[in-house]
Amino acid sequence: MAMKTKSEYLDSLNDGRRIFADGEEVKDLTTHPQFATALELVGDGYDKHYQPGANASGPYFLIPHSQGELKELLETLLGWDMVTVTTSQGLLALLTAAARMRSDHPEYAKRIEDYFEYCKKNDLRCVQAITDAKGDRTLSPSKQDDPDSYTRIVERRPDGIVVRGAKLHISSAAISHEMVVMPTKKMRTGEEDWAVACAIPVNAPGVRIVNTSYAPRGREEDFPHSSHHNMPEGFVLLDDVFVPNERVFLAGEPTHSATFAHSLGLWERLGGTAHLVEIGDTLVGLAQLIAESNGTQRISHIRDKIAEMIIYATLVRSGLEAAIANAEPSPEGWYFPSELFTNAAKHYGAAEFSHMVRHLHDIGGGSIVTAPSTSDLQHDEVGPQIKKYMRTLDGVDGEYRTRLFHAIRDYTADAFGGWQLVTMLQSGGGLYAQRLVTRKHYDMDKAKALALDIAGITKD
Amino acid sequence: MAMKTKSEYLDSLNDGRRIFADGEEVKDLTTHPQFATALELVGDGYDKHYQPGANASGPYFLIPHSQGELKELLETLLGWDMVTVTTSQGLLALLTAAARMRSDHPEYAKRIEDYFEYCKKNDLRCVQAITDAKGDRTLSPSKQDDPDSYTRIVERRPDGIVVRGAKLHISSAAISHEMVVMPTKKMRTGEEDWAVACAIPVNAPGVRIVNTSYAPRGREEDFPHSSHHNMPEGFVLLDDVFVPNERVFLAGEPTHSATFAHSLGLWERLGGTAHLVEIGDTLVGLAQLIAESNGTQRISHIRDKIAEMIIYATLVRSGLEAAIANAEPSPEGWYFPSELFTNAAKHYGAAEFSHMVRHLHDIGGGSIVTAPSTSDLQHDEVGPQIKKYMRTLDGVDGEYRTRLFHAIRDYTADAFGGWQLVTMLQSGGGLYAQRLVTRKHYDMDKAKALALDIAGITKD
Amino acid sequence: MAMKTKSEYLDSLNDGRRIFADGEEVKDLTTHPQFATALELVGDGYDKHYQPGANASGPYFLIPHSQGELKELLETLLGWDMVTVTTSQGLLALLTAAARMRSDHPEYAKRIEDYFEYCKKNDLRCVQAITDAKGDRTLSPSKQDDPDSYTRIVERRPDGIVVRGAKLHISSAAISHEMVVMPTKKMRTGEEDWAVACAIPVNAPGVRIVNTSYAPRGREEDFPHSSHHNMPEGFVLLDDVFVPNERVFLAGEPTHSATFAHSLGLWERLGGTAHLVEIGDTLVGLAQLIAESNGTQRISHIRDKIAEMIIYATLVRSGLEAAIANAEPSPEGWYFPSELFTNAAKHYGAAEFSHMVRHLHDIGGGSIVTAPSTSDLQHDEVGPQIKKYMRTLDGVDGEYRTRLFHAIRDYTADAFGGWQLVTMLQSGGGLYAQRLVTRKHYDMDKAKALALDIAGITKD
Amino acid sequence: MAMKTKSEYLDSLNDGRRIFADGEEVKDLTTHPQFATALELVGDGYDKHYQPGANASGPYFLIPHSQGELKELLETLLGWDMVTVTTSQGLLALLTAAARMRSDHPEYAKRIEDYFEYCKKNDLRCVQAITDAKGDRTLSPSKQDDPDSYTRIVERRPDGIVVRGAKLHISSAAISHEMVVMPTKKMRTGEEDWAVACAIPVNAPGVRIVNTSYAPRGREEDFPHSSHHNMPEGFVLLDDVFVPNERVFLAGEPTHSATFAHSLGLWERLGGTAHLVEIGDTLVGLAQLIAESNGTQRISHIRDKIAEMIIYATLVRSGLEAAIANAEPSPEGWYFPSELFTNAAKHYGAAEFSHMVRHLHDIGGGSIVTAPSTSDLQHDEVGPQIKKYMRTLDGVDGEYRTRLFHAIRDYTADAFGGWQLVTMLQSGGGLYAQRLVTRKHYDMDKAKALALDIAGITKD
Repeated sequence: MAMKTKSEYLDSLNDGRRIFADGEEVKDLTTHPQFATALELVGDGYDKHYQPGANASGPYFLIPHSQGELKELLETLLGWDMVTVTTSQGLLALLTAAARMRSDHPEYAKRIEDYFEYCKKNDLRCVQAITDAKGDRTLSPSKQDDPDSYTRIVERRPDGIVVRGAKLHISSAAISHEMVVMPTKKMRTGEEDWAVACAIPVNAPGVRIVNTSYAPRGREEDFPHSSHHNMPEGFVLLDDVFVPNERVFLAGEPTHSATFAHSLGLWERLGGTAHLVEIGDTLVGLAQLIAESNGTQRISHIRDKIAEMIIYATLVRSGLEAAIANAEPSPEGWYFPSELFTNAAKHYGAAEFSHMVRHLHDIGGGSIVTAPSTSDLQHDEVGPQIKKYMRTLDGVDGEYRTRLFHAIRDYTADAFGGWQLVTMLQSGGGLYAQRLVTRKHYDMDKAKALALDIAGITKD
Repeated sequence: MAMKTKSEYLDSLNDGRRIFADGEEVKDLTTHPQFATALELVGDGYDKHYQPGANASGPYFLIPHSQGELKELLETLLGWDMVTVTTSQGLLALLTAAARMRSDHPEYAKRIEDYFEYCKKNDLRCVQAITDAKGDRTLSPSKQDDPDSYTRIVERRPDGIVVRGAKLHISSAAISHEMVVMPTKKMRTGEEDWAVACAIPVNAPGVRIVNTSYAPRGREEDFPHSSHHNMPEGFVLLDDVFVPNERVFLAGEPTHSATFAHSLGLWERLGGTAHLVEIGDTLVGLAQLIAESNGTQRISHIRDKIAEMIIYATLVRSGLEAAIANAEPSPEGWYFPSELFTNAAKHYGAAEFSHMVRHLHDIGGGSIVTAPSTSDLQHDEVGPQIKKYMRTLDGVDGEYRTRLFHAIRDYTADAFGGWQLVTMLQSGGGLYAQRLVTRKHYDMDKAKALALDIAGITKD
Repeated sequence: MAMKTKSEYLDSLNDGRRIFADGEEVKDLTTHPQFATALELVGDGYDKHYQPGANASGPYFLIPHSQGELKELLETLLGWDMVTVTTSQGLLALLTAAARMRSDHPEYAKRIEDYFEYCKKNDLRCVQAITDAKGDRTLSPSKQDDPDSYTRIVERRPDGIVVRGAKLHISSAAISHEMVVMPTKKMRTGEEDWAVACAIPVNAPGVRIVNTSYAPRGREEDFPHSSHHNMPEGFVLLDDVFVPNERVFLAGEPTHSATFAHSLGLWERLGGTAHLVEIGDTLVGLAQLIAESNGTQRISHIRDKIAEMIIYATLVRSGLEAAIANAEPSPEGWYFPSELFTNAAKHYGAAEFSHMVRHLHDIGGGSIVTAPSTSDLQHDEVGPQIKKYMRTLDGVDGEYRTRLFHAIRDYTADAFGGWQLVTMLQSGGGLYAQRLVTRKHYDMDKAKALALDIAGITKD
Repeated sequence: MAMKTKSEYLDSLNDGRRIFADGEEVKDLTTHPQFATALELVGDGYDKHYQPGANASGPYFLIPHSQGELKELLETLLGWDMVTVTTSQGLLALLTAAARMRSDHPEYAKRIEDYFEYCKKNDLRCVQAITDAKGDRTLSPSKQDDPDSYTRIVERRPDGIVVRGAKLHISSAAISHEMVVMPTKKMRTGEEDWAVACAIPVNAPGVRIVNTSYAPRGREEDFPHSSHHNMPEGFVLLDDVFVPNERVFLAGEPTHSATFAHSLGLWERLGGTAHLVEIGDTLVGLAQLIAESNGTQRISHIRDKIAEMIIYATLVRSGLEAAIANAEPSPEGWYFPSELFTNAAKHYGAAEFSHMVRHLHDIGGGSIVTAPSTSDLQHDEVGPQIKKYMRTLDGVDGEYRTRLFHAIRDYTADAFGGWQLVTMLQSGGGLYAQRLVTRKHYDMDKAKALALDIAGITKD
């Protein structure tokens, strides 16, 4: 019933959780190369926000009650670690679902609010577990030859339910406290057992998480970003996990099976767009710095490419601003961003991202992937020579320029860069999902009226 | 000293102005096919806004004093004819220039404000005359073999100046009262005679305007949009035109030679973006209506293309909203839109416009250009047959669908469509200019700081 | 039984055909503004190719028997009028269908060859009539509420069949001799009446053609291309037209219902690609000429855009060359182009066309749509002034530059330009069809083997 | 004077060469992780091609004497290791330079031919060393504050020259025998010392090579491609290296300073295009396999994306075919590919590459970066569970699908993928260079003539 410090957080993970990586069970997360950095980041986040007292709570548990609060939240979260961001956005998504379910299922809405308070009071970190294994994409959940392809209820008890399945791409699950499980898509009548949402502690019996990571393969200086920012990606196995009733948020109501995914989609895309704004600016900055280092910043086609990157970053930003400026309140007074602008901005940002990376690679040149290691820069014999030849002009020494190349490689052309390239497209449900949602929330009647006016056709 | 009615407006044009078209001088604008429609539109605008009384003035003379007023202005102007829009935005551009020149040249700022009052009191329509003939683009104005390639002062008198040159692409000049002449680009020291801005009545001695037009070539029903919306494009000849001192806004100060173009650019691009928002929605509407008429609106690749068009329209809208939401006041308390967002949105909207038209053509099909004339629909023998075969399904009769095809052709694949394709790119100064301005107003220092952070480089 | 001269061709059209345009039946094609130019073009083609003698025949009746002959044919046809091109390619498509049907239906193959000889001996011009009215696109032909939505057999007689329906977008039908009618898509079992292909003379009883056109709206000098190159687009009504058995090429065999469309698609796309090569080079030429006229040809972003246009034109050309170099012979020894390369090249050329037009408009500037009429250039008073201001540098006089702008407007930003924009996408069946066919002819097994090799997976 | 076996090759590298990596000098290349794989690949190539006898020589020393031989060469080389490919193409580039210099400098041409024979007789592997350090890109070589920024002659002796500088991005230099050094760009009069081309053995005194690599960071099964295909990228330091006269191919003649770069550009781009053809097909294969594994291969937008990838692969292939089909012979009878088609195809392939990778990532899904390691598949407890949930449908087991995801990640979204993303753009000189060369070899006069014809302007 209080906020946690870093050391309390690290201790709290020693709770019997079962974590795997590289073919082995991980006995100590804090020393394993796939987890150490992430634990540092999240732990530092605890220390940064820590306030004493039983009533203290982190700013990541704020529910925005105005457009201004929503805007401030999105600016603030850019300074948080990814797990804290996920906790904030995931719980807001859960509350969004609560608001949308309240009239039909007040008991679920109430449980969600209670759960939110529980997390807030205990300063927990939560991840959302949505993507199922899915099996054959052409068949619905109940038609799969393996019924566990989508997470489902295998037993209903008076005091709770038992669930089975797998949840994929669950970033940071291994180092969080809670997972909010929800259906990956709309279920039909007859698929009640797959219409299940609930909260599960990471250390619950039956939970096992197999991890992979883009944690860097070399020395920190050569991976200046990813050595400080990497998160384990969890493949979560739910092997007949019991969930008590108070943590069950849906258990057999197909009409609301997509409510969670839609709510999560909204917040994930909003958060994704907020990050894209920063990523867009970062790409511009990298492009400008390397161009200045090469002495090419005034060459017309270089300027042109950087201008295109600037327009990209600015448009994503304008989409985010419009999503917030058009936010609307729920009956509870909670402000949810505009679906229309959020989805349009996220789609544009994600779809054009690889093109912006291409511009950066085009501007930077081959040294992005061929620059010698910073360790070579320290070598007595070749170090001074490399510095001599990597230097370009007054104010741009060879070491600085070499490090810029490593930053670009790390950020866009190595393991982290590849991870970013894929997740940019896939996070928040993929381009296709964003198109569908944008379309759904677009004012098509108004567009048709404009078109009929052009055609001189009066609609009766 | 009062607002004008349509009939007063039409009378006011009988002022000795010299207008040419199709190789002949036009004696009566009101009956000439290139001008009649435009006069109707502008005249109707006068009647619509007319209020009696000496102190009445049109809403197009409003200076926004808050973001809210700016937003309202942009929504309102979509309902005005093009000349009224131009009057509003051009005068706001002029006031923007006044604000930017006031500290160095208070007398010019004062003259501009007086001129604004003069136009407002007499309910005049003004166009901006900026683009010069330009001659050889590789040479600056003073280096051209014909010094008149850029409009210049050929004589300075105690009571005013005499100017000579040509101004191109001046839409609606022939049916307006006033032209605000300004330099097309920055002049250097030594080019004082080309650093000239002033207001010239259309009927001033020495002014002649040669016109061209996309006015349609056929019957109204086959050109449902352009037959009601066409404006003459003026090639304005200034043959030693005298301008009295009180209408001179710049006469020899190169440092402010680009102030007018920059100010006009801002407002033209803002207005252009506002129209693009409507055009984007119109394209979506046409695409959706023709898809529904063809029975293809649920086909995946058709839906996908319409979704892309929706995202386009939504992003342009978000850029416009951000341009307004980030508007900032001048010392006078006048609100000017954000250069950054205005330029980014206009660039995106213009650059992707032809791609959206391609989507519409791809969705619509060949009948966009091959549908029989609506006059054939009335023919006793073939009319019923055409209706039979142009019909597709219940609720979509052949005539309605034929008219939709004509609307799409008129709007995007005929003379008006071609005009729109070109002006979309060129209005407000071309894509290149928009890139330059976006870049200039982008926070590059912040972007670099983000990039250095990625690189782990601490800047001292 | 001999080749025709222009005058014989013009006489031959006086055959009772029923042609409509602008709401009226056309009594004399040779003097009607929608047809006069086209008749001149086609007539000149007759005179150009005319050779006396009973055995003479036009080169447009050549069947290529080698890759070399195919290549030569495609180069030659660029110099022919559109109707002659259509005759050549349409009959080659028909022969392709014959080759593909010969084993199952030798009688149809024989009739097609006889028909080919008939056209050749009488020097006839033929168009292909493929696109049906189609009704509701979500329903197959037999499910339409109007069964005539797809052309069908309404009566079978011992000596022939009677057909009813409409064929859309039939360029030049009104000034040709023959129409080869074929199904627009694959028919299913039960749709035998819609599986119909046959040849119908334009003057057959029951045939009526309603026309539209992009023929220009103004004087020739302002429409330098379209005033010399325009073709009527026919909406062909088939009102219970009798077809004798020897002209019936399919009458109830659904398995071959798509053979004609596929064959025509191949040749239309090949011919389309050949024209695209020329159009691509023309766009480059216009861009370079106007850049040189503006003095901008050395500006970096202008050069860059022209370079992109060059790459476009060159890639389309390489696709055409590959389509020919990979042509394969039918059992008859007739050389048919590669489906794979033809479709890929056509798709690329069509899909990127509007982007290339955008580049041209971006390079050219606003005068593309605002340049005064060439008739104004002749005006005593304003003519010299326009010439003065449209001139730019030594060697570029104002009239020349004005005419270049008119050429660009006519070719890309007016009625012809719009027609070209739409037909570029739609000819040969639309982008979607080209994707399908490319995919069908691609060596997917080889691609998969390469991918498995990357994955280190041995396929058993 | 004979071909080498793998073991002879490995022995031959023990020649005193000085190689560095990761901050240390490498004592034994054969056991170092950055070099071992590459040595295996190159060594296997030696064994594969080995033939006994003094006159035997590898097929990579063939000079094509016809279009057919050129085509065969390009097909064959896809089966060679990268060093052998580089040897073939680099020496052909050198011979191309010889052909272009013969009339002015027959002695250089002769030395090149002798050198070619020397390499052939001793079965050596050669790399081209072209890219200089370049310093400040806005200054020419002689204006740099460090004159060594471009490799230069620091001393001329009777028996040879002494060179100093650095050469960057020299793939495989560390495991080759010879480096052909050449100027990175055109030098001006007064820059004679920088106009230097010559051959230098890797073990020559004064040569040091610092290496970097995308060699994978994990177990082979998780990096199925890069663990078998990785090459060290060399940063070559030339510290006052003596070159005897017979290995000097240019030493002070600025007029031919760019001849080498142009020749190398042609062959590198041709080879690059040949590889792009294979890479394009590989991307299609990966996309199709993963779609089939996910059960999504019939979903419309997935099919559409794969069709776009197919069109891309086919267009690159058609460009390569056209480059060969338009090859022309030198006076020596050596066939050189078409500059026009080679550059256009390489530009298109490189420019669109990242877009194709985006399609693959969009189709594949998040498991590309989150799939558990193949070592987890072997784990007793979680292995069977991962297989269960990674399985999708009959015929697609979990291990197979997991390995496909790893292949896609390795190939496009990890260290190798990043390397490929950058080198795709940068190899052969960057997009900008390819635009310049395409433009230079395009028939602009013909394009202008077509445009003038459209404009109805007769050129005298």
